[in-house]
Order: sequence, then C-alpha cells, then structure tokens
Amino acid sequence: MDRIPILRIGEMLLVSIQVDLQDHTALMLQDDLSNRIVETGAKGVLIDISALEIVDSFIGRMISTTAAVSRVLDAETVVVGMQPAVAITLVELGLTLSGVRTALDVDRGLRMLRDSVEIPVVGRGVSPDDGRAD
Amino acid sequence: MDRIPILRIGEMLLVSIQVDLQDHTALMLQDDLSNRIVETGAKGVLIDISALEIVDSFIGRMISTTAAVSRVLDAETVVVGMQPAVAITLVELGLTLSGVRTALDVDRGLRMLRDSVEIPVVGRGVSPDDGRAD
Repeated sequence: MDRIPILRIGEMLLVSIQVDLQDHTALMLQDDLSNRIVETGAKGVLIDISALEIVDSFIGRMISTTAAVSRVLDAETVVVGMQPAVAITLVELGLTLSGVRTALDVDRGLRMLRDSVEIPVVGRGVSPDDGRAD
Repeated sequence: MDRIPILRIGEMLLVSIQVDLQDHTALMLQDDLSNRIVETGAKGVLIDISALEIVDSFIGRMISTTAAVSRVLDAETVVVGMQPAVAITLVELGLTLSGVRTALDVDRGLRMLRDSVEIPVVGRGVSPDDGRAD
C-alpha cells in the first residue's frame, strides 16, 4: 500500500496523508495528483495532514511543489488539519509553506476553495428604477 | 501514526483507510468514530477503502460493526472505492458486508447519503390555478 488515494469531492480533490512519505511515494503522489487534476478538471486540492505528527523539510518541500504544480494546472491548494505542534515546529525551523493556504479542517478548506473558485457574476446589474413617471 | 483521521465534510464524516488495520487500530477507529458522530451530530459515515488491496474477514467484520454502531447513533454508513479484485474476493469468500451500502467513489457516496438524509418537505403544495375567471 504505497499509493495515497486521491478522493474526488465535487470539483475538489482530497488527499489525506497518513503514512510516512518516502521519496517514491511522494513522487507518485505528485504524478497521480497532476493526472487527476487534468482528468477531472478539479479547481482545488485539499491536502489533509492531520495524521502527521512531524512535518520536516522534505514534506514541506513536497507540499510546496505539489501546490506549484497544481497552480499551473489551474487548481488551488489548501493544507488542512495541521496539528498545533507541527505549526510550532514549522515556524521554529523557518519552513514556510510558500504559496500554500491553510485551513483548520476539511470542511473549512472546502468552503475556502469554493468561495475562491466561484465565478463572480458580471453584467447582471438591474438598472435602478428612478421613479420618474415619464 | 496509528490513528486513522476522521474528516468532517458538512454533515458527513469521511474515513480513508490506507494502512493495514491491526486489532488496536481498528478498535481505536471505532471508538474515535462513535465519539465524532456524537460530537458533530453527523448523519452519515463514508469509509473509503480504495487503498486496500485485500479485505479479509477481520476488516469485513470491522466495517460491519462500525456500520452497526453508527446506525445506533443515527448515522448511515457507505463504503466507497472498493477495488474490483476486492469485490470478487469478498463474494468468493462469502463475506457480505451486512447492513452496509456501497458506492463507487466518495462523490457518489456523499450524494447517496445526502439523498437519504434529506428530510422530505411536506405540506408545501401550491393549489393549482384552474383558470376560471370567477
């Protein structure tokens, strides 16, 4: 079991990382994910790291690269479920997840993605009635 | 990392099983899941097994028990992402996931749960206009 499943939820893709990422698992995930984005036309990617107790520079870089690749394919990335200890370590190590947004949980992440994906309606303005009779 | 994360998506909970389940992992999952159902008032549980290449009698029983516990707590369970080979093996072994519904993927499972959870609107009927002038 070295393939991390990519789950589709509407227009979004969800990846829940539960295992220690090795080089080839990470590469395979990036490969699978970019393929799925193209196949499904997904507009957003959620990466759940709630099961991770340690995020080192390798995983940090992997997440940043994945987000960069997704962006090129027109999908936004949100990292969700980060444990408080992980956040502290990231800051202490000076690792910034550049170009990646974060949310507390999957639910908020989904909402964040949906809000930013929604296309604003333009040109639907109703001309105001100015009340003049003729 | 022996705790399987439980992700909330709206009124549903999603569990993606990616690791070989041991006795204590399975027990912990059942415990965590029932607690989360009570905490969140979730109406449905999705168990994603797309990463599993083998489903033996132990996992089969675990899924059935989880579904039974969830039902008592007023949440329906849908198993999603079963690989074709797993389905064949289940039938060959005579393992039926009793009381558990299945769906092809998370998206369809979510829709299935939402459809069955939705409360039918009663008494909103609009009386038809019969066209008579007086």
